[in-house]
Amino acid sequence: MLKIAIDAMGGDNGCAPIVDGVILALKQDRHFTAILVGDKKELLPLIPHKFQDRIEIHESSDVISMHDSATDALKRKESSAYKAIELVKKGEAHAYVSAGHSGASMSLATLRIGRIKGVSRPAIATLMPTVNGTTLVLDVGANVDCDAKNLNEFGIMGRIYAEDVLGIEDPLTGLLSNGEEESKGNEVTKEAFKLLETIPNFVGNVEGSDIFNGSVDVVVCDGFVGNIMLKTAEGVADTIGKIIKQNLRRSLVSITGAVLMRKVFKKLKLKVDYAEYGGAPLIGVKAPVIIAHGKSNAKAMKNAIFQAIKAADSNMNTHIEDKLKIKS
Amino acid sequence: MLKIAIDAMGGDNGCAPIVDGVILALKQDRHFTAILVGDKKELLPLIPHKFQDRIEIHESSDVISMHDSATDALKRKESSAYKAIELVKKGEAHAYVSAGHSGASMSLATLRIGRIKGVSRPAIATLMPTVNGTTLVLDVGANVDCDAKNLNEFGIMGRIYAEDVLGIEDPLTGLLSNGEEESKGNEVTKEAFKLLETIPNFVGNVEGSDIFNGSVDVVVCDGFVGNIMLKTAEGVADTIGKIIKQNLRRSLVSITGAVLMRKVFKKLKLKVDYAEYGGAPLIGVKAPVIIAHGKSNAKAMKNAIFQAIKAADSNMNTHIEDKLKIKS
Repeated sequence: MLKIAIDAMGGDNGCAPIVDGVILALKQDRHFTAILVGDKKELLPLIPHKFQDRIEIHESSDVISMHDSATDALKRKESSAYKAIELVKKGEAHAYVSAGHSGASMSLATLRIGRIKGVSRPAIATLMPTVNGTTLVLDVGANVDCDAKNLNEFGIMGRIYAEDVLGIEDPLTGLLSNGEEESKGNEVTKEAFKLLETIPNFVGNVEGSDIFNGSVDVVVCDGFVGNIMLKTAEGVADTIGKIIKQNLRRSLVSITGAVLMRKVFKKLKLKVDYAEYGGAPLIGVKAPVIIAHGKSNAKAMKNAIFQAIKAADSNMNTHIEDKLKIKS
Repeated sequence: MLKIAIDAMGGDNGCAPIVDGVILALKQDRHFTAILVGDKKELLPLIPHKFQDRIEIHESSDVISMHDSATDALKRKESSAYKAIELVKKGEAHAYVSAGHSGASMSLATLRIGRIKGVSRPAIATLMPTVNGTTLVLDVGANVDCDAKNLNEFGIMGRIYAEDVLGIEDPLTGLLSNGEEESKGNEVTKEAFKLLETIPNFVGNVEGSDIFNGSVDVVVCDGFVGNIMLKTAEGVADTIGKIIKQNLRRSLVSITGAVLMRKVFKKLKLKVDYAEYGGAPLIGVKAPVIIAHGKSNAKAMKNAIFQAIKAADSNMNTHIEDKLKIKS
């Protein structure tokens, strides 16, 4: 039976959406057990009686809050994040999910669970919406300064994640750059381009817009660029929403229109809503680690847990190790 | 009388939208003359008789097309771009506007017109829409690899452009980074942060989303990151539009809604449409240079010409030279 360790304490909205998400997941999938790590007194009343045999509670007395520094995470051995990571490290759980301090989860996972042999730096990946599907982008925040070798590893790991976890056959991989021509790029990406060319179905340089038009399955960038891309996408979507709302308020005719359009906007929300995808996997550590959004609702948590299960059920990490062995 | 040199040949849709834009601008503003550089035989029939005294045509026999390399631009001395730039260099025109090959315009402007004393590298700036206005972002493509000193100069030039050309009093300047905290950033931006702190109203690090929420007037980044940010924004806006359209087609109710919403979408388009802002100024060269979009329609060209006029009427370049003198 698969066991998923869940940091139940760190989310922006307390334990309730975390526990609700776990229950949603348990209802839908009968082949796993959840280990909630956190304050028993808070957690127990949230769990309906009939789910108590499929949820273990692992007591922890400390919580790493969003205001704490990630570097403290290693010393805070009583924290829910630390204890949940330790369960995975000791083999008592197969994967880790947290909606808490993402920096803390990343450094705990990298340093306590450890990197897959051959991986220099694990990367955070995220799924961005396109008209017909999604694009996997990595790194989006774990590694701010990267060299060509790091970017090449991200490409290798991203391709394997797309194949093994997302089920995309022979995915197309691109390198995020300032133009499609091979001559485009900064010093690091130009060097990375040459290394990435050995990846099957490498399409070369892609532009920011290609992330959203479905022309590629995996996009490689460093964590600095990836974070800016991610926040830009959120900012634009948010601003378009606000401009629409602002103009709606001014016009009665458009209010009628808006009511009729509600269904369309619901579908739009569904496509751009991170809750649909769950969380962001940290790829390159020895066990599946899913970093969920701090604001995750129950549905987002459920999907984050399913991501962890899918990754744990796959041979992703063996494939990554094998592929990097051939490289070196 | 102000004279604006216009490369009439390089646009994606031929000369017609360029000439139409010039005529729109001449109708609205009586204190300038346009010098169209291009093929007289093509241009003359497009100019109504009553505007012929305010439009000079300067013959050129060559056009740098979008497929040509920017490095060839310096050798193609008969091209419309080269000849228009030479008019500015010789003082026969006060500013340059082109919807042609942007790389060619940039290198011709930098190498033939020359940099303002103290400027290491000119930067391309662009206006991004917010709910209530715009944000000036630079560099968005001229300089792919930048050091801290370059980024600091972009901050100084951006602030002066915002004050002198956009008329923003005491603008807020931010450094694009992967988080707001001072500790965030890559090696180069962390170093640039310290230099930028001497700029009045420097707000520190800003995120991709801050470009679109109106919290800052000027955002500094290198041209690699700036290009990716720009293309990401275009891609997201485009994808949201497509998702809305796709869903509209599926539902009769929402077609009715869409008709009623048309007014709202028109306003939205107006806010996110580059045609509203004209083109992207190349800041740091000795005369105003405006790089218009290759797909510019007449309105976009008109606004690009007005940008050039505003810049030529301002003391921007003297201010940049003075400010950089103090710095060094």
